[in-house]
Amino acid sequence: MTPVTQSALAQHIRQVALIDQHVHGCWSTGGDRRRFENALNEANTEPLADFDSGFDTQVGFAVRNHCAAVLGLPKHVEPQQYWERRSQFNETELARLFLAAAGVSNWLVDTGFAEGVTDLAEFGEISGRRAYEVVRLEQVAEQAAQAGGDYPSAFEEILNRRAAGAVGTKSIMAYRGGFDGDLSEPPTTEVRAAAQRWRDEGGGRLHDRVLLRFGLYQALRLGKPLQFHVGFGDRDCDLRKANPLYLLDFLRNSGHTPIVLLHCYPYEREAGYLAQAFNNVYVDGGLTVNHLGARAPAFIARLLELAPFRKILYSSDGFGPAELHFLGAALWRNGIDRVLHGFVEAGDWSEADAIRVVDLIAHHNAARIYRLASGDPRGPISPGG
Amino acid sequence: MTPVTQSALAQHIRQVALIDQHVHGCWSTGGDRRRFENALNEANTEPLADFDSGFDTQVGFAVRNHCAAVLGLPKHVEPQQYWERRSQFNETELARLFLAAAGVSNWLVDTGFAEGVTDLAEFGEISGRRAYEVVRLEQVAEQAAQAGGDYPSAFEEILNRRAAGAVGTKSIMAYRGGFDGDLSEPPTTEVRAAAQRWRDEGGGRLHDRVLLRFGLYQALRLGKPLQFHVGFGDRDCDLRKANPLYLLDFLRNSGHTPIVLLHCYPYEREAGYLAQAFNNVYVDGGLTVNHLGARAPAFIARLLELAPFRKILYSSDGFGPAELHFLGAALWRNGIDRVLHGFVEAGDWSEADAIRVVDLIAHHNAARIYRLASGDPRGPISPGG
Amino acid sequence: MTPVTQSALAQHIRQVALIDQHVHGCWSTGGDRRRFENALNEANTEPLADFDSGFDTQVGFAVRNHCAAVLGLPKHVEPQQYWERRSQFNETELARLFLAAAGVSNWLVDTGFAEGVTDLAEFGEISGRRAYEVVRLEQVAEQAAQAGGDYPSAFEEILNRRAAGAVGTKSIMAYRGGFDGDLSEPPTTEVRAAAQRWRDEGGGRLHDRVLLRFGLYQALRLGKPLQFHVGFGDRDCDLRKANPLYLLDFLRNSGHTPIVLLHCYPYEREAGYLAQAFNNVYVDGGLTVNHLGARAPAFIARLLELAPFRKILYSSDGFGPAELHFLGAALWRNGIDRVLHGFVEAGDWSEADAIRVVDLIAHHNAARIYRLASGDPRGPISPGG
Repeated sequence: MTPVTQSALAQHIRQVALIDQHVHGCWSTGGDRRRFENALNEANTEPLADFDSGFDTQVGFAVRNHCAAVLGLPKHVEPQQYWERRSQFNETELARLFLAAAGVSNWLVDTGFAEGVTDLAEFGEISGRRAYEVVRLEQVAEQAAQAGGDYPSAFEEILNRRAAGAVGTKSIMAYRGGFDGDLSEPPTTEVRAAAQRWRDEGGGRLHDRVLLRFGLYQALRLGKPLQFHVGFGDRDCDLRKANPLYLLDFLRNSGHTPIVLLHCYPYEREAGYLAQAFNNVYVDGGLTVNHLGARAPAFIARLLELAPFRKILYSSDGFGPAELHFLGAALWRNGIDRVLHGFVEAGDWSEADAIRVVDLIAHHNAARIYRLASGDPRGPISPGG
Repeated sequence: MTPVTQSALAQHIRQVALIDQHVHGCWSTGGDRRRFENALNEANTEPLADFDSGFDTQVGFAVRNHCAAVLGLPKHVEPQQYWERRSQFNETELARLFLAAAGVSNWLVDTGFAEGVTDLAEFGEISGRRAYEVVRLEQVAEQAAQAGGDYPSAFEEILNRRAAGAVGTKSIMAYRGGFDGDLSEPPTTEVRAAAQRWRDEGGGRLHDRVLLRFGLYQALRLGKPLQFHVGFGDRDCDLRKANPLYLLDFLRNSGHTPIVLLHCYPYEREAGYLAQAFNNVYVDGGLTVNHLGARAPAFIARLLELAPFRKILYSSDGFGPAELHFLGAALWRNGIDRVLHGFVEAGDWSEADAIRVVDLIAHHNAARIYRLASGDPRGPISPGG
Repeated sequence: MTPVTQSALAQHIRQVALIDQHVHGCWSTGGDRRRFENALNEANTEPLADFDSGFDTQVGFAVRNHCAAVLGLPKHVEPQQYWERRSQFNETELARLFLAAAGVSNWLVDTGFAEGVTDLAEFGEISGRRAYEVVRLEQVAEQAAQAGGDYPSAFEEILNRRAAGAVGTKSIMAYRGGFDGDLSEPPTTEVRAAAQRWRDEGGGRLHDRVLLRFGLYQALRLGKPLQFHVGFGDRDCDLRKANPLYLLDFLRNSGHTPIVLLHCYPYEREAGYLAQAFNNVYVDGGLTVNHLGARAPAFIARLLELAPFRKILYSSDGFGPAELHFLGAALWRNGIDRVLHGFVEAGDWSEADAIRVVDLIAHHNAARIYRLASGDPRGPISPGG
C-alpha cells in the first residue's frame, strides 16, 4: 500500500530497526479505564480530576492516531471505542501486539521501578527480542543499606554483581533533590557516616546527597553507560533543578564513561550543548516524544541542533500500557521523517546523509556505547501500526 | 468573500466566540502618536528612543496587518497613514469598533491598574458584552493597609466583599520580588507585624513578602480562580524570577482552587508542564500572542505541548489602545488556525478533534472554571477585521 | 542561473551587503584535518574522540553544503573530498576566497584572542574591505596589570588609547565567572586593592569580579558599543550563568551606551526581551547561526520575536577556518530568506517591510550604533557560494 513515489529516506525510516535504550516493563495485570487515562499523564502524581481526560492531550490523540491501527481500528477512533477494543485483550496480548509493532531489535530495561509491570525475563519473552538490564543506582544503594556491613564495599559488590549481566546504570538524582549543589565525590568516611545515619533511620527512599554522589562515582568507575533522568518527569521532580546545566562540574570530572541525558524537556537544547561539549555525553529525547504527540517533530528538530549526530540516541521510556512502548517508536519515525525530509527538501542535507543519520540515532550510536551487536539474531523486525 | 473551499475548521475558528479571561480597560482619553507607539512596547518602562519606532516590531506589523481593516484601511498600510486614520476617531469610538470586532462574548477585567483607562462599567457598556471583575490581590492589600484595624481581618473582609461580585483574583507577585524563595503561608502573628511595619512606613506599593504570601493563601481560601502574572511583562519584573517553576511548592499546597498562569513567555513550556502536573493549574498565552505577531503561531504551538487541552485558556491582556483587545483575538484565531491545520493536514489530528479543542480553549474551559454561561444573552458575536 | 521568478525579497537578501559586527581572524598557518574538524566543534575544549567527526554535525553538513561551491565542488560533497580540495589551498588563499564570497562590507574584529590567526591589518588586506577593531576589556585589564602604577588610571589610559581607533569594546565576563552576582560599579579603593592582589599573584587570566566589574563601567563611560558574550560558547563558560537575564540590574544602570548581546543560544528569546526592555540593548545571533546549520532558520525566527527590528544585528563570529566567516553570512541569508518569505506568504508581512527589515539587520542598525558609513568606498560587494 506504500505509494511507489515514497522516498528512499521515508522507506528507510519506516523499516529501520531501533534500539530502545531506555524502557520499563509493560503492565502485567488488567485495570480500569481510569488507570489507563492516568497513564497518559506523566507529570501528575494524583488521579486525574473528574472534569479531565487523559485522552484530551497530545499523547491521547497520538494513541488514537497511531495505536488504533495495531488494534485493527481506524485512525482517530473515539476514546470509548478505543477503550472497548483494548479491553478485548489482556495486557500480555496487548504487549505482544504493540512490542512487535514497534520494530525494536533490542530493549534496554530499567528495572529499578517495576511495580505492576513485567520483569526483564517476561519482557524479553513477550517482545521476542533481546532485553538487557539497566541497573538503577538508587536501588543498589537501598540494597546496600539492607545488606549490612561496610556500606561502600556492599554497594560496590552489589553494583559489580548486578552490572556484570547488565549494559548500563541509571540515576534518578533528579528525583532525589535535583542536580544543583555539590556533585563531587565524597570521602569514604563521609559515605560511611551518611550510610550509618540512613540505616539508623530505618532506610527507605534514598535522599541523602552524600550517598547519591557516592553512587554516581561508582557508576563512573564501572565504565558502562550511566543514564540520567533529566527534565520532564512527574512533579516529585523539581523541574527547575533537573536542568542538565547543573551537571557541568560533574561532567568535567566524569572521564570517559558514557553519560546519557534522558528526556530533557524543556532543556533539550541545553542537553544538546552538553553532548557537543563533552566527548562522553549523549542525549535522548526519551519520554518527551510520546507526550508531545503531534508536536514531537518540533522537539526532535531541536534535538538536532548542537548535539553531534554520533551523540544522539533513541528511547521510548515506555512504562505500563504497551501502547507507549510502540508509540515512542511510531512518533519517532514520524517525527524524524518530517524533520529530515524538511532538511532534504530545502537542499540543506543530502538524502544519503539523512539516511545515515537515521541509522546513527536508531541503533548505531546505542550499539556502540552499549556494545551490542547491531543486528538481532532472531530475524528481521517488522514495524507496523 | 470567503472561498467556498474553506475548511470547517477554518470557518469554526473564524466565528467562535471567545472568553477573554484577562484584560484591562481601553484608553479613556486621546493622546499623541508617541503614546501610541510606546503602547506597542510592553517591556520598556521609558519612552522609546528617538531612533526607534513602536511600529517596527512584530506587534507593530500586526497592527498594520490586522487592525487596518477594522478602520477601513488596506493591509500593511504605512504607519503614518494608520496613525492619521486612527486619529479621525476618539478612543471610545475606536474601542467600540475594535471590541466588537474581537468576537468576544465575555471580558474578564483586571481592575487593579486602571490609570487612564475605562472602568468596568464603561468597558461593559462600550463592548456591548458582559464584563466581569478580576480583583487584584495587591490592591486589596493596599486597601487593607489604609483601612486600619486588624490587617488580616481587614484584608479578608475587603477581599470577600469585592470578590462577591467578581469572578476571580490576580497576583502580580512576579512584579513584587518574583517567585523564588519561600511561598508558604505565614503565621498570623508575622502578618500582623509585617502590616504594622508597612503602615508605619506610610504604606505605598506592597513589596513585603509576608503580606504578599498572606494574600495568596487568602485567595486560595476564596476558591475562585487565582491568576498569576508569569514571565513576560515590563522590566520592573525580573524575568528570571518570574519562571513558574519557582511556584512548585506553592502549587503542591494549593488544593483545588484553579490557578491560571498568564503570558508565560519564555516559560510557556514550563507552564504547560505545570498544567499537566496539577489538576488545578491552567495556562494562557495572554499578552505574548499580541507581541509576537507573525511569530504567534509558533508560540501557540508550544502552548499545545504538555498542557492538557482542558487546561488551556485564551486572553488578550489588552490595555490602553483598543487595537490590542482586538488584535489578541485576531492573532489567536490566525495562530490556532495555522497550528491546528498543520496537525490535521499531517494526519496527526482529526478535524473534528481540532474543532473541539478550539472550543475548549476559546470558551469552554474558561466558562467551566469561572462558572460563566457559555453563550451570551446579548446575541451572537460577529468577529471582523 | 537565478530563476526569473525569484522574488524581489530573495534577490535583495542574496545581494545585500552585511556588516559582520563580531568576528575574529582567520588561520594564518596550515594544519591537519584533525585541527579542521575540531574547529567545527565550538563547545568541546578537548580533541574530538576517535569515534567522532566534526563533519557529523549541523555545521559540518553546512560546510559541505554551502562552502563546497566556493571551492568549485558540488553540494554535499564527501568530507574526504572536501578536505582534499581544501588542502590544495593555503589558509590565506582560502581566506581570500571565503571572505570575498561572504558579501561583507565591514568587518568588526575582536582582537582579544588571536592565537594562530591573522591580525587586524592582515584581515583587512585579505578581505579587501575595512576591518575595525573591537577592544576586549579583559585584555585591557591584563595590560593595565602589567603596566604598573595606579591600576584604575592605567586601565583608563590604555582603554582610551586603544579605543580611539576602535569601534567598540567586548566583555567575556561570561567566561570569567558568569553574570550572576553583583554587577554594580566597585569603589576605586576596592579596585586598587583587587589589582594589588592580582599583581601580587603574578597576574595571568583575569577572574577577579571587582576588576571585571570595574572594566564594564569604564566601557560604559567610553560610550562606544559594548559587546557581551552571552550563552553558547565553549565549556569553560558555565552556560547556566551566561543567561542574559542575570544582567538585568546592570542594564538598569547602563545609561545610553549601546550594549550588544552576542550568540545568546539558548537564551535568544530572553535576549530579545531585553532588547525590547532597554533602549540601549541589542541582540545578535552570532556564533549560533553557524553551528545550527539546517536549524538556523528556526533560530533566526526566534530572534524575530520580542526584539524590535531596529535592535537586531548580524555577525558570524568566525574564528580560524575562513569557512566560518563565509558560512555565517550564507546561513544568515538562507535563514532570513526562509523566515521572511514565510511571513510574507502567510500574509503577515508585506514584501516591502521584509526588505526593509533585511536592511536593518544586515547593516543599517550596525552602521548606526558603530557610526560606520553604510556604503563601502571600495565598490560593490559580490556574495558568492
